[in-house]
Amino acid sequence: MSTTIKESASAATDRILSLTAQLKGSSNPADHQQKAKMAVPYKFQGWMGLDKDCADGKMVWQEYEPKTWTEDDVDIKIQYCGICGSDIHTLRSGWGPSLYPCCVGHEIAGTAVKVGENVKHIKVGDRVGVGAQSGACLDCEDCIEGRENYCTKMVGTYSGKYPDGSKSYGGYADYCRAPAHFAVKIPDGLKLAEAAPMLCGGVTVWNPLVNNGAGPGKRIGVVGLGGLGHFAVLWAKALGCDEVVVISRTNGKKVDAVRMGATKYIATEEDEGWHKKNARSLDLIVSTVSSPKMPLARYLQLLRPNGQFIQVGAPEDNIPAFNAFSLIAKGCKMGGSCIGTPADITEMLNFAVEKNIHPIIQERPLSNANQAIVEMDQGHARYRYVLVNEKHVEEARA
Amino acid sequence: MSTTIKESASAATDRILSLTAQLKGSSNPADHQQKAKMAVPYKFQGWMGLDKDCADGKMVWQEYEPKTWTEDDVDIKIQYCGICGSDIHTLRSGWGPSLYPCCVGHEIAGTAVKVGENVKHIKVGDRVGVGAQSGACLDCEDCIEGRENYCTKMVGTYSGKYPDGSKSYGGYADYCRAPAHFAVKIPDGLKLAEAAPMLCGGVTVWNPLVNNGAGPGKRIGVVGLGGLGHFAVLWAKALGCDEVVVISRTNGKKVDAVRMGATKYIATEEDEGWHKKNARSLDLIVSTVSSPKMPLARYLQLLRPNGQFIQVGAPEDNIPAFNAFSLIAKGCKMGGSCIGTPADITEMLNFAVEKNIHPIIQERPLSNANQAIVEMDQGHARYRYVLVNEKHVEEARA
Repeated sequence: MSTTIKESASAATDRILSLTAQLKGSSNPADHQQKAKMAVPYKFQGWMGLDKDCADGKMVWQEYEPKTWTEDDVDIKIQYCGICGSDIHTLRSGWGPSLYPCCVGHEIAGTAVKVGENVKHIKVGDRVGVGAQSGACLDCEDCIEGRENYCTKMVGTYSGKYPDGSKSYGGYADYCRAPAHFAVKIPDGLKLAEAAPMLCGGVTVWNPLVNNGAGPGKRIGVVGLGGLGHFAVLWAKALGCDEVVVISRTNGKKVDAVRMGATKYIATEEDEGWHKKNARSLDLIVSTVSSPKMPLARYLQLLRPNGQFIQVGAPEDNIPAFNAFSLIAKGCKMGGSCIGTPADITEMLNFAVEKNIHPIIQERPLSNANQAIVEMDQGHARYRYVLVNEKHVEEARA
Repeated sequence: MSTTIKESASAATDRILSLTAQLKGSSNPADHQQKAKMAVPYKFQGWMGLDKDCADGKMVWQEYEPKTWTEDDVDIKIQYCGICGSDIHTLRSGWGPSLYPCCVGHEIAGTAVKVGENVKHIKVGDRVGVGAQSGACLDCEDCIEGRENYCTKMVGTYSGKYPDGSKSYGGYADYCRAPAHFAVKIPDGLKLAEAAPMLCGGVTVWNPLVNNGAGPGKRIGVVGLGGLGHFAVLWAKALGCDEVVVISRTNGKKVDAVRMGATKYIATEEDEGWHKKNARSLDLIVSTVSSPKMPLARYLQLLRPNGQFIQVGAPEDNIPAFNAFSLIAKGCKMGGSCIGTPADITEMLNFAVEKNIHPIIQERPLSNANQAIVEMDQGHARYRYVLVNEKHVEEARA
């Protein structure tokens, strides 16, 4: 080995050590920003919640340091991001203290602009999406058996911490960095704006439907016609279910429900004796509401023997106490379901293309995110707000 | 047609009309007793609860009128009857007002002594059993699809009413009359005394196990080691489950549990941090306890992702309120299951013969039923009391 080569090797080692020190060493925010700037030619900045009052429309636009780059990651130039109920819950620390500063949004659709060397399924320029999950150990029994969404090491797309200590930040932003395992390719034939809300809202109801036999011969109930509920109706209809029954508080959304494909509509605060008239009529109910005051025992009355009630809306408090006879007397089950894996998402996106399914969305400018979250929280969305990063959308069109 | 024949026909018609009038006409108890006596050469008499205090050991031996005979029925000369927790609940009107006078017992094993003309699967002299159900419409969607146990017209083996208005009476008695659809043949190779407690206790835990995939590769939990729980351990072990974990309050039944086949034992009041140490370890839990104070949220912690918790013990009050996150975060389900159909019972009895399974029972003389129910209620049974109609057993041996 010549002296020159030795010297080069030594210089390379020095450089690695120096970079490692840079990555590990400093806790000075200015240094962190410097590193982020050094690494890529774009800034990570987005709407940041600073405390639990931010849910009232007080997010601030700030730069932040994304997760430490690894060769398993992907950087996404965000074009669209759906507004999910979880965003509001998290901004106001409704499910326990959030990691402020916090940039929410986990229905992220855009273009891959940097792809780690170890990533096989995505290349720069691909249209990609990231849902509610951005991390898992990928090594436990659950991950290996394809249940990454139930891994104990799950990292949420925002308000989470990666094993190396860096934080996760969501999609109310210009760019997003995430482990590529949790980025899916958006199939051709699906608009990015429509794909975005499927990544969390869509798959959250897709999974309990397909995992519990929704299809021909089955009668499905959907509690709540919001972002999730409207997807449940669209999926159930396209899956060929015999009946798709929307269960809402008032008749206010009846016309919309029928347009989406509902075959029947129950207004629990307006239809006298609804739980008796419709008793034992449904095989599967997907409940998207998250009020702890929901009339759970009455919903359970609607189930046929061996029927299932799957809760996906996560109440901030306990669900109402009920008598186990509700379940025992008909051999019924009450379950929960949490988002879906990248494989589930991919299956759903392909189904959406195949069945030509279009969610009902309202585009809102990212610049106006504060107003959008307030209106979302007030229940005005019909049926999903999708934030538009207008600059990036224009650039993609150009 | 000769005059003599005409006259005979007329006399026969008169006799039929007279019998019909007898059956329909009288509401005088003495007349009813008379009819019962006329119809068959044996008396229907048994231990009768007269009010809710009878559960304290105050049942009285009385004659009663069985259901009105039809050609779909079978009369059984009872040799054994298991004592089920439901008997006590019913005697004290714990699940709502019972129909007093009430003769409980729905783990009835004996010999068919009278079989209706329409009955194909049983003949006089057959060893037969009747479980907790003795009636259903046999005509609704559920009955047709083999879920008679969830028919809305279900008639319990005791404290029930048949469509014709006659009452159902259980097996703490000499004889039992029931629709033959709900009587199953006891296979050769199974002792009547051991078959008896399988007819309700056995099938109540058999169904949630086999319907939810208990078998090789699965880890099963059994909450409560009483009559039902001990069957759950025996079945789960014989079904080839990888783990059979008994979850009890104290270590008092640990030795017994291991003898039955349990691979692990958790004492919730003695093992510190049991719910954390054993978190995410079980695929399926069958809960046989019926206390509304049970630590439900902690039981749910024991489930693996996509795991199921099936409640078969029916609390008299609401189950504890819990946060839906317990179910959502792991995609778990909490369900109920109610007894089993005659087809389920037959499958289970054949399995018991095939696997040479022997429940752990304690025989108690029928004459001492009052003492036996009190001791059962105090939790002394190890693990199922079976009442013995000693006279009938001796007659069968003779």
